[in-house]
Amino acid sequence: MMFEEKTMKSDKLYEGKMLNLRVDTVELPDKKYSKREIVEHPGGVAVIPIVDNDSLILVKQYRKAVEKFLLEIPAGKVEINEEPRVTAIRELKEETGYSTDKMEYLMEFYTSPGFTNEKIYLFLATDLVKGEASPDTGEFIEVEKFKIDALIKMIERGEIIDSKTIIGINLAKKYLDDKQ
Amino acid sequence: MMFEEKTMKSDKLYEGKMLNLRVDTVELPDKKYSKREIVEHPGGVAVIPIVDNDSLILVKQYRKAVEKFLLEIPAGKVEINEEPRVTAIRELKEETGYSTDKMEYLMEFYTSPGFTNEKIYLFLATDLVKGEASPDTGEFIEVEKFKIDALIKMIERGEIIDSKTIIGINLAKKYLDDKQ
Repeated sequence: MMFEEKTMKSDKLYEGKMLNLRVDTVELPDKKYSKREIVEHPGGVAVIPIVDNDSLILVKQYRKAVEKFLLEIPAGKVEINEEPRVTAIRELKEETGYSTDKMEYLMEFYTSPGFTNEKIYLFLATDLVKGEASPDTGEFIEVEKFKIDALIKMIERGEIIDSKTIIGINLAKKYLDDKQ
Repeated sequence: MMFEEKTMKSDKLYEGKMLNLRVDTVELPDKKYSKREIVEHPGGVAVIPIVDNDSLILVKQYRKAVEKFLLEIPAGKVEINEEPRVTAIRELKEETGYSTDKMEYLMEFYTSPGFTNEKIYLFLATDLVKGEASPDTGEFIEVEKFKIDALIKMIERGEIIDSKTIIGINLAKKYLDDKQ
């Protein structure tokens, strides 16, 4: 028998641009109280952009939180009242310049449900048409094309270390293998 | 040519039990300033526990941040000065009761590098010996065994929605397929 944690008190500690922080006091199944530190996040989309039937378009950018340049699938925050599919088309175009109407929903997942409600909606983009990128102010992004088999090896060598990108590349591999 | 973001100022806003929050003011390549909201997290381990050559041991627990019961691979926070491999053996035993010396490092990844430095070290556990679980105070966990092929279907149906667990199950599938 499992029980939910009952919220006894909820303290907002910070309301920011990208995230909020709150601490909930919860009642556990044994009636004891505990604290839960929770980061509220609007959630995002991530896109697996497939080109040439064997390659993906990835983006490289500096991630201050980890003090590293990371190679990732294109992604972005969902705006208020925006359909994730619309976000996916918009972010792909902004970050990479590629546009398409073929944006297929694949799955959604939580990045780290132990402390944040951030959820990512993952899409597969095909029939891509190349164009001009138009990143947001403050975004500095490099766009690069990689063969799917090279990407699988880069995961194995620890050169791709972003969770959504690992999930996306594995799904792209399955999709491309199934098509052959 | 890519540039790192230079830290001009760093404000600690919250120091908690599980995480800290800070806001960095950074200088961008175009010399403009921007804010980065960053959640500092000690990082964790996650374990893929393989039994019977075709099954995994998973845990189900209530996750307050997402207000849901989630099915996940066993995981836990790395304690200060603790080797991730030691954490993995300890957490597996505490959460599931299973113990082993065969704890093999597979890979590491960031859960959401856009705003947190949380990194997960992923291990593969084999030769498991069943014993008594001993969860931490305030942890209420159900332990359950699943066939790997059932787990793959559960991901496809959206019943498993935790990123580290999706990555772990995909790796377990590869490992078990390669062994046959």
